Order: sequence, then structure tokens, then C-alpha cells
Amino acid sequence: MTAVSLDFGDDGLVPVVAQDVETGDVVMLAYANEEAVAKTRETGRAHYYSRSRDELWEKGATSGHTQAVEEVRVDCDGDALLYRIDQTGGACHTGYRSCFYRTLDGEEVGERVFDPDDVYE
Amino acid sequence: MTAVSLDFGDDGLVPVVAQDVETGDVVMLAYANEEAVAKTRETGRAHYYSRSRDELWEKGATSGHTQAVEEVRVDCDGDALLYRIDQTGGACHTGYRSCFYRTLDGEEVGERVFDPDDVYE
Repeated sequence: MTAVSLDFGDDGLVPVVAQDVETGDVVMLAYANEEAVAKTRETGRAHYYSRSRDELWEKGATSGHTQAVEEVRVDCDGDALLYRIDQTGGACHTGYRSCFYRTLDGEEVGERVFDPDDVYE
Repeated sequence: MTAVSLDFGDDGLVPVVAQDVETGDVVMLAYANEEAVAKTRETGRAHYYSRSRDELWEKGATSGHTQAVEEVRVDCDGDALLYRIDQTGGACHTGYRSCFYRTLDGEEVGERVFDPDDVYE
């Protein structure tokens, strides 16, 4: 399916880092199975596999905060992906542009771009 | 230990994205256990947990290609970390600055910064 072969491991998943191509920000880390990678390439929109809901998941299908995927990169071992994306709205369900909006010490370093109450019912 | 509590999951690990603070490049994805996070904070140098060698691992201990950690960020769910680092040399054992040096189609997009034969015996 891809020129570089992927190692989906025992659980059939690879971790995926999503990076905003404009700002360079790392906006989220999620997981993809083979189908999610195929759908991402087919549609140009980021797809993942939700481990909690146990299903294929198109980012932004509910919120409208989709990710247009400009490029998919793979790491040296073929067991991690980097989606280089153009993010509509915010990537995080909490309303922040990036899920990595805090330091370990709890300092807020990210920007809130929407109110989740307005987006999710 | 940290103001934001971490979810190390069933295997005691969290995925860690390492991002170069100067270039914004995502240079690698690895894993950390609680000890690796503590060592990283204590020393200011990136520590991970090697799943293949089953041991704590200081990045660059062999190669000299250490990562000075400026900041550790945590994601919304507390189950992924972002090390914001200053990379000495290259992050990848193949000699590239970033482990994500190829697209899924096999196109080389990364820069090679050292010859692994000179670094690893």
C-alpha cells in the first residue's frame, strides 16, 4: 500500500504525531490502524483509530475541526507516523489549538481558540 | 511528582514526542516510564524507556547526540508528552537530524547530519 512498509505492532496501531505545517506546533498524538492510514491518503483528511471508542475516526467529523493532510512522514523504524496538517479551528476537545497546552508543572502555554460548549453537544 | 498527573497505562509507558525548539522539527517518537520522566526533569537531559532493550535510556549516552530539555509538555489526557529539546547532532541512529526523514512514498525529506559508522561501533 505504501512504499515504506509500516510496523503496526501487536495491537495493529501506530502512534501518529500531528503537526501544524504553518505554526510548526505539535497539536496532538493519536493512533492509526492500517485503514486509518489508507483513508487519510485517500481523502487527504486526517483519520485515526480511537482506542477508547474502538473505531475508525475522522478528525473533526463531529466538531468540524478537520485536519487537511499535506504530507505523511514515517520514522526510521516504520512504527510511528507524522501527519503534517493544516488545522481548522483547534485540535483539542478542550478548546485549545494544541492538546499539549500545559507544561508538566501545570503552566498554561497554549492558546484557547474555541469554547467546547459551543461545539460539542 | 508532577503538578499534572500522568497516565502511564497498562504497560507503564507514555509516548513522547521530541521537538527541536529551534527548527520546530519533530525529531523522534519514543516512550518514557515514570523513572525516565523523573530523570529527564532531574538532569535536564532527555531520558526514555527502551522497549526493545527493556531499560532506561539516556538519549545520546552512546552517540553523544544528547537532547537538552527546555520544557516538558503534557497533553489533555495526560497520556502523551512533548519534550521541547535542543538537539546535539542528529536524533536518528541512521544519521538524519530527524527520524521522520521520509514520506510514506519513500521520498527523502530530511537532512543527514552524521555518518552512523563514525558514531556507533
